[in-house]
Amino acid sequence: MKLTPRQQEIVRLVKEGQPVTSEALASKLGVTRAALRPDLAILTMIGVLDARPKVGYIYSEKPSTSLVYDYISKIRVKDIMSKPVTVNEETMVYDAIVFLFLNDVGTLFVENNGILTGAVSRKDFLKIAIGGTDIHKVPIGVIMTRMPNIVCVSQEDSVYDVAEKIISHEIDSIPVVEKSVGMDGKEHFKIMGKVSKTNITKLFVKLGKGQ
Amino acid sequence: MKLTPRQQEIVRLVKEGQPVTSEALASKLGVTRAALRPDLAILTMIGVLDARPKVGYIYSEKPSTSLVYDYISKIRVKDIMSKPVTVNEETMVYDAIVFLFLNDVGTLFVENNGILTGAVSRKDFLKIAIGGTDIHKVPIGVIMTRMPNIVCVSQEDSVYDVAEKIISHEIDSIPVVEKSVGMDGKEHFKIMGKVSKTNITKLFVKLGKGQ
Repeated sequence: MKLTPRQQEIVRLVKEGQPVTSEALASKLGVTRAALRPDLAILTMIGVLDARPKVGYIYSEKPSTSLVYDYISKIRVKDIMSKPVTVNEETMVYDAIVFLFLNDVGTLFVENNGILTGAVSRKDFLKIAIGGTDIHKVPIGVIMTRMPNIVCVSQEDSVYDVAEKIISHEIDSIPVVEKSVGMDGKEHFKIMGKVSKTNITKLFVKLGKGQ
Repeated sequence: MKLTPRQQEIVRLVKEGQPVTSEALASKLGVTRAALRPDLAILTMIGVLDARPKVGYIYSEKPSTSLVYDYISKIRVKDIMSKPVTVNEETMVYDAIVFLFLNDVGTLFVENNGILTGAVSRKDFLKIAIGGTDIHKVPIGVIMTRMPNIVCVSQEDSVYDVAEKIISHEIDSIPVVEKSVGMDGKEHFKIMGKVSKTNITKLFVKLGKGQ
């Protein structure tokens, strides 16, 4: 956003002599108070100026974070999620690692007929790989984090909530699931996608590009 | 940001009958055009409405991305970077992996008297760990990515540029360096910090919290 020359001049005047009343600003700029109203409303709204009743305008260091917040909180998981890479529980750890590299992802999700049963990260793989285990003979079901111990999100969640879960639970990638009730009457979670730190970083780049 | 009741009413009227002139809006709301000017200026500025000369106002789907862009492009690397975890070239791969886990990071940087010489990611470690090499006998200098083949940033770079480098070069963590000229007259890079996808995700959470 570019401030107009008059808005920039207002900011300069306020910085110089804060607090400054709108009367003082109007007289310095040689215009009426009514003419200044739109500019002052905008500068206050985007957080460049702070209006103190009966005191005047002061310069505020904090930028327009509330607008940023508003914008971010409107973006949904489904807008940025990507395709999950999945294996099944019987896959041997070695084969799973090869699969991880071939797909160039950081986390594999484990599924059984589309139902999420587990997750294994690069960190889990590295741990087992240096442990002296024969990774050709151990299936992934032995080392994976198993449901319900996996943090999940749904497609309608806000991206902001997902980012917070990623940070607070210290995970790299979150599965996006849809709840369904199976033939056995139990709740299941179908895996629909994933959101990783990479997706968040990509979104950040997009925001920065103004797209 | 919360729109005022009148601003919401304006948006509703424009959505209903776009394009709508400011005269029409003023008469529908029973106020003067001058009284509407601040509201229309704000709604146009934040991108909710689009003003078409000689046509009127139309509703614009695109939100205030330019403000978001402005805000993001002001954040510098030094505002979000964290401490790098470093080892030296002689460290054996196995010991380096243990060190990686103890520090709970994804990438180790390799230094020699504070000068960045290399970097090794969890991915590099996993590759060597499944390769049948005796990782107790191979020093990290053998497997690391060596300078000048490492993408670096400086403290004054914008966070947006860093995020873009992380995505375009497909890396997890970027070293933050400071150029200096050594006794030998050669350029060196002192390692000052690092920025990872985790730092970007944390910043995202902070933006979402409006901090």
